[in-house]
Amino acid sequence: MDSANIRDRRKIQKPMGVPEIVVGRLPLYLRALSHLPEEVKAITSDELGNLLGISSAQIRKDLSYFGEFGKQGSGYEIDYLRQQLQQILQVDKQWPVALVGVGDLGQAILSYGGFQERGFYIDVAFDVDPQKFGKSFNDIQILPVSQMSKFIAEHELLIAIVAIPSSVAQMVADELVQAGVRAILNYAPVTLNVPEHVRVYHIDPAIGLQNMTYYL
Amino acid sequence: MDSANIRDRRKIQKPMGVPEIVVGRLPLYLRALSHLPEEVKAITSDELGNLLGISSAQIRKDLSYFGEFGKQGSGYEIDYLRQQLQQILQVDKQWPVALVGVGDLGQAILSYGGFQERGFYIDVAFDVDPQKFGKSFNDIQILPVSQMSKFIAEHELLIAIVAIPSSVAQMVADELVQAGVRAILNYAPVTLNVPEHVRVYHIDPAIGLQNMTYYL
Repeated sequence: MDSANIRDRRKIQKPMGVPEIVVGRLPLYLRALSHLPEEVKAITSDELGNLLGISSAQIRKDLSYFGEFGKQGSGYEIDYLRQQLQQILQVDKQWPVALVGVGDLGQAILSYGGFQERGFYIDVAFDVDPQKFGKSFNDIQILPVSQMSKFIAEHELLIAIVAIPSSVAQMVADELVQAGVRAILNYAPVTLNVPEHVRVYHIDPAIGLQNMTYYL
Repeated sequence: MDSANIRDRRKIQKPMGVPEIVVGRLPLYLRALSHLPEEVKAITSDELGNLLGISSAQIRKDLSYFGEFGKQGSGYEIDYLRQQLQQILQVDKQWPVALVGVGDLGQAILSYGGFQERGFYIDVAFDVDPQKFGKSFNDIQILPVSQMSKFIAEHELLIAIVAIPSSVAQMVADELVQAGVRAILNYAPVTLNVPEHVRVYHIDPAIGLQNMTYYL
């Protein structure tokens, strides 16, 4: 964030008890705002709703948990709303992330260009294959998984991406949590058991497909 | 599905107006049931809720849209509930799926072993790179994207996975829809505009991460 942004920043109150489903929509709003043409400076909740297939009433209600972001009639000032959403979601900074697993999927994640502008960077990757140790992908070093706990604890990493087979996912998750990780993006198609203070977000393409077949 | 399953099958009524959020939880129930040890034959809504971090009341309410699946006291018979969920979600069959884009991510999707047992198989893949034409990955042939529309229309494919750069995602989505696709699993980090009869499910790792940073 540049100094202008910092100067403009008003402290966001993080209200208690915002439903998870509401928090879950904020990243969608942020992504939609980020993809608008640069010349567009303001957007109404109707327009944003049309882009996302969400009702404008829902959008206004969701945002109202966090404050007053729009002006009656003229809608939301895009730069301002983006900045506020980034603050609310705490992605107005860059989070270092550990990647576990550098197979096909892990390599795709390492090459993915979309993290940086959205608040994240892969700081380190771990694998079990000795042939990969010491190599690097896009300047990210690959370390033996045996060094994972120590590295994560020392660097105080809070976020990990797990791209490993289901059979070892729970074991690795336990180790990550033990080392201090509090947010896991899990690509293994298995439900991870973690303590209450840890969050897991599943990326599971079959779940995505099954969400749609109901309607076919 | 084998003949025993077909014999046992009772026709599920697909009720009108089940909220999308309810439909979206059914694949999670199905996945959790599929990961239980084989010797477990029944599960209560409390136990299922604990596995998923969802309240048992929510689970009972969700399932009650579709019928009576449990017996008071003894819970749900797992095989039966799985079978019913598969029917409701229409994944008691194998859907052929077209993959668009065979980069790192597309290759990871082609190697992903989890589709088959969950109702899907990749039938064909498309790419723009002539070096990939005619090759195959796990017996799936890679065709030029110029043949995509014709192939999809002729084979009446309804589902596509889009693993291509954002810049071309909307163009490809338009072509897919034109060819008859009605469900798109979209890995490009961009909101796709599609007609109302088409569903899009986004797989976006940054959205997943942003869902969790709020709580850190």
